Amino acid sequence: MSAKGAIRQSEEARARVIDTATAIQAGNRRALARAITLIESSRSDHREDADALIEALLPRMGKAIRLGISGTPGAGKSTFIEALGKEVIAAGETIAVLAVDPSSRRSGGSILGDKTRMPELSADRRAFIRPSPAGATLGGVARRTREAAVVCEAAGYDVIVLETVGVGQSETAVADMVDCFLLLLAPGAGDELQGIKRGIMELADLIVVNKADGALLPEAGRVAADYRAALQLLRPASSAWQPEVTTCSALHGHGIVDIWQAIRRHRVALETSGMLETKRREQRRSWLWDDVHAALIDRLRRDPDSAAAMNELERQVMTGDILPSTAARKLIDKIDDEEADDR
Amino acid sequence: MSAKGAIRQSEEARARVIDTATAIQAGNRRALARAITLIESSRSDHREDADALIEALLPRMGKAIRLGISGTPGAGKSTFIEALGKEVIAAGETIAVLAVDPSSRRSGGSILGDKTRMPELSADRRAFIRPSPAGATLGGVARRTREAAVVCEAAGYDVIVLETVGVGQSETAVADMVDCFLLLLAPGAGDELQGIKRGIMELADLIVVNKADGALLPEAGRVAADYRAALQLLRPASSAWQPEVTTCSALHGHGIVDIWQAIRRHRVALETSGMLETKRREQRRSWLWDDVHAALIDRLRRDPDSAAAMNELERQVMTGDILPSTAARKLIDKIDDEEADDR
Repeated sequence: MSAKGAIRQSEEARARVIDTATAIQAGNRRALARAITLIESSRSDHREDADALIEALLPRMGKAIRLGISGTPGAGKSTFIEALGKEVIAAGETIAVLAVDPSSRRSGGSILGDKTRMPELSADRRAFIRPSPAGATLGGVARRTREAAVVCEAAGYDVIVLETVGVGQSETAVADMVDCFLLLLAPGAGDELQGIKRGIMELADLIVVNKADGALLPEAGRVAADYRAALQLLRPASSAWQPEVTTCSALHGHGIVDIWQAIRRHRVALETSGMLETKRREQRRSWLWDDVHAALIDRLRRDPDSAAAMNELERQVMTGDILPSTAARKLIDKIDDEEADDR
Repeated sequence: MSAKGAIRQSEEARARVIDTATAIQAGNRRALARAITLIESSRSDHREDADALIEALLPRMGKAIRLGISGTPGAGKSTFIEALGKEVIAAGETIAVLAVDPSSRRSGGSILGDKTRMPELSADRRAFIRPSPAGATLGGVARRTREAAVVCEAAGYDVIVLETVGVGQSETAVADMVDCFLLLLAPGAGDELQGIKRGIMELADLIVVNKADGALLPEAGRVAADYRAALQLLRPASSAWQPEVTTCSALHGHGIVDIWQAIRRHRVALETSGMLETKRREQRRSWLWDDVHAALIDRLRRDPDSAAAMNELERQVMTGDILPSTAARKLIDKIDDEEADDR
């Protein structure tokens, strides 16, 4: 449907897309920001422009380091990303930071990515910081984040950070978009007491215990040792890289260089082993099927009758009044009828 | 499509389904075995009979303990399930064991579920053992296993065991079908050295270190302690249950009673906290969407042109020649055309 739309797309729209693509590749920050806003829009004509824009930028993809950073509130994520970003810039590279969590606006703005949060990065031309789109579903945010990352990569940023709050909703989605997943913890933040959300430790290529300073220094070392021991029990995701656990003090800038070097080492390990390409191929594959799935469900939801039927079937399935496979068949028939109506 | 088929279904077929359902509920083992064969069949008329049968049996669902057991080859899974099964039977209950892994036939028959593997259980009328369907894809096996479990539950088995080889392909799928997930390890089996597959420890409600006998006894205790420490770092999946780590010797029958009691305690904890219903509601929901997704993809694959186009698009996506979201839209259009052709 939106593919057909793209064909119908007016010459004027095409021209606009090409101008934007050129401006983005030329490093125009305002064009980049506008493009991400376009990607985040739910208007179908915007959607078509966004699709055309992303396709125009596709050839520029693939060079950046895609880094996922997850940390529970209180782990000092903003301070850490600010410190890491300064390190990246000091190394002569550029960095884009995209916040992922759908609930970020509601969660006390902890991830707003505004000026007050990462003052130095926000002021630096070599950094680009983008808050998470407000009021979007996780699925929506995941899809838009993938595309926003593509655009930032096309804009020439060397490091693309996808930042999530480590509460377990979006980590898996983000791990499926990045080359390297960094988990940020802090002693006394409750992580080592209540334990981190199940599944997140499994995703980590790097575990960083922040706030290794002052009174918390010894505790940070203990937490790091605990996680180091725990990781010994897990088979690495690939033979190319054994997850590492380090400590740092983002506040005082201690250990940040080592972490940046670990990220580089991880990248080299993935490249030399061929894992980087393998990983990205698989990521593109699941992106494809996620989109197919989402598009089909979206279509059902667009038609009020289908949406109502879908919600009712889902309710009956959850109460056990109908077998899921039976409900699935009824939904498929709904889609058929949808198609029929379209003609 | 198969829903419409079900309506077209002949009276004779309906009668056959009702007879089979009655026989299964009466505890007729041959009828049960035939029903599972029907479920595993890929013939569309068989599929329709299977759907009708499962719907007829649906009211009988929900009482059994659904137990996932995963263990790497060498952990002594067959011996453990045999010992646990005898314990279940000694407690006056019945047990059905379904092997899940698609590759089981190829993996040296380690999971064949044949007479030689669990001699006592196989000979006992209070146990039902079913090997995994050969040559099926994981998705196919997952869907069929869900349905086979429904049928076994309708046949009145008190405990339904879904058994997988802990190599990480099917554990997540199985964890999404069971109430309780048990991970079986063995000292010296390499698990505690190379680490278990990422993500599997996260799924476990119970971790059992087998072969706690003879020379391996002290090592088994060390391994258990390691995993106990590691679990401390993970937040439990629910406040209702903190995953437990125990040791046993399936060979000598030591510790099996405790494990069976832990499984019962886990069940009680889920029930009293309301987690059991919550968990099963979510499982039914994901079963629904898994089926919807699978059905839509299956339909594409059925049409040779679409299948070819799909494979080509997937190839281009993986090589990066086309953006996944673009390929997704083209696939959706393919489905539309499919629909058009159906009319």
